[in-house]
Amino acid sequence: MAQDLSKERMDFLAKDYSRGFINHCGFEAEVIRRGYFQSGVKIVDHHRQQDGFIHAGVMATMADHTAGYAAFTTVPEEYQILTIEFKVNFLRPAYGESLVCRSRTLREGLQIIIGESEVFDRRAEEEVLVAKALVTLMAVHKDKLASKA
Amino acid sequence: MAQDLSKERMDFLAKDYSRGFINHCGFEAEVIRRGYFQSGVKIVDHHRQQDGFIHAGVMATMADHTAGYAAFTTVPEEYQILTIEFKVNFLRPAYGESLVCRSRTLREGLQIIIGESEVFDRRAEEEVLVAKALVTLMAVHKDKLASKA
Amino acid sequence: MAQDLSKERMDFLAKDYSRGFINHCGFEAEVIRRGYFQSGVKIVDHHRQQDGFIHAGVMATMADHTAGYAAFTTVPEEYQILTIEFKVNFLRPAYGESLVCRSRTLREGLQIIIGESEVFDRRAEEEVLVAKALVTLMAVHKDKLASKA
Amino acid sequence: MAQDLSKERMDFLAKDYSRGFINHCGFEAEVIRRGYFQSGVKIVDHHRQQDGFIHAGVMATMADHTAGYAAFTTVPEEYQILTIEFKVNFLRPAYGESLVCRSRTLREGLQIIIGESEVFDRRAEEEVLVAKALVTLMAVHKDKLASKA
Repeated sequence: MAQDLSKERMDFLAKDYSRGFINHCGFEAEVIRRGYFQSGVKIVDHHRQQDGFIHAGVMATMADHTAGYAAFTTVPEEYQILTIEFKVNFLRPAYGESLVCRSRTLREGLQIIIGESEVFDRRAEEEVLVAKALVTLMAVHKDKLASKA
Repeated sequence: MAQDLSKERMDFLAKDYSRGFINHCGFEAEVIRRGYFQSGVKIVDHHRQQDGFIHAGVMATMADHTAGYAAFTTVPEEYQILTIEFKVNFLRPAYGESLVCRSRTLREGLQIIIGESEVFDRRAEEEVLVAKALVTLMAVHKDKLASKA
Repeated sequence: MAQDLSKERMDFLAKDYSRGFINHCGFEAEVIRRGYFQSGVKIVDHHRQQDGFIHAGVMATMADHTAGYAAFTTVPEEYQILTIEFKVNFLRPAYGESLVCRSRTLREGLQIIIGESEVFDRRAEEEVLVAKALVTLMAVHKDKLASKA
Repeated sequence: MAQDLSKERMDFLAKDYSRGFINHCGFEAEVIRRGYFQSGVKIVDHHRQQDGFIHAGVMATMADHTAGYAAFTTVPEEYQILTIEFKVNFLRPAYGESLVCRSRTLREGLQIIIGESEVFDRRAEEEVLVAKALVTLMAVHKDKLASKA
């Protein structure tokens, strides 16, 4: 399972990343490698809480979804990825103008995949780690996905 | 700390619940009691993934935010609530027309508060538990909030 | 999968529960039903920390292992249970003379099983909830277990 | 808070690490730096499960306790450390002759401290990452610890 990703596969993953709720949140793919996925978002008012800090749900969604796509880079094209669970710690308040999320797989497989995500707050001259997540994912063959419901 | 909430306090919490990112997600307060908070959301296309299931980030954000407001019902008015971390398990795919989240506090305090949230998928004739979360929160006096960054 | 457990199966699970590290910790099965497992431990000095409180690791191990056996009650006899991950919150210091752990399954399956555990501190005249865990488990057919390593 | 640890402090932490339940488990301090703590354990039969794999509770306890001592290296001597919660993923079965746990702090403070732990299985010619944990801790002044119960 160690070969590189094709250009077509990377284009598909980049586009597929930003659909539905993720499009509504404004997250976009930035860097894709096998076992690694990086996404970013420009922060606007609707990402914030009443006190101006970026909402925990924004960072959690980004950490989950990006880890899912890091997992997606490691499986054959006929597999989909589902999140079984995740846990996220918020290390410091986030209030910058954009966020970047870097996710990598800690354990691969065709059943259970474990990833971790780090979310950074991009401020004037530095990136600050603001959230860290551990994510448990499941690879499911497309033919079996419909029967999961 | 066992007295009931005033009508004014409940009105404040119900309105305060749906601002910023939460307003963007369409979540609304439904039931408020001391140590308990229930929210709901009517599902529209932008809550879904490409496969039609409701995105894990929607449920995670709802579980986090609603647990925060359950905690908010237990502290004096000069305190705010911050999420330290949470963990959420996705039990079954969610695909219904609305979600309801019920959160309650497991441990109160003026420093650390622990809550749990259950997210239910409202289908034709039943509610199905689709996600469960444990949430660790911190009560912070308003005067100290600015210095937290 | 809704039938009751046989007497033989319950005897097997009760005995199987207390082996290896769990025997070293002194945990014992107390109540077994389909989808439910309760265990107990009499606290002695080596369960404590230097300050006299019961160590978090004792409660975490109990929460994990007992959830595993609650899952074990739901699968056919040719399946084993592995822990994929768990998360545990410590709600209050535990210092009593015994602990009891009650675990139940939130989601069954022949692949992923989700359980939750509550650990109670048995004090003079009451039981106090001291820890709560969410546990993700995997059912694995015995024939495949050896190849997992 | 960036000064090095004194020789006396390191000796105290190394000795303090292995008391009560941790002594019962056989864990010992190996390397101590500010914000970092490494521990090890020689595996014997009572660390295993019935199938020969090292029990998840052994790795979880090690991940929790070692993260606590990484936090302990960052606070003044009059503070103690309590675990609020932790989450641990088991990445691969562990069956080697010893384990090593490396913990570091991700966020320091005199209230909330966040750490992460990695547990490695020491096999013939390599170390394999078998578990990873995120740990939320609280620093408590010794004078306040008694009143916490």
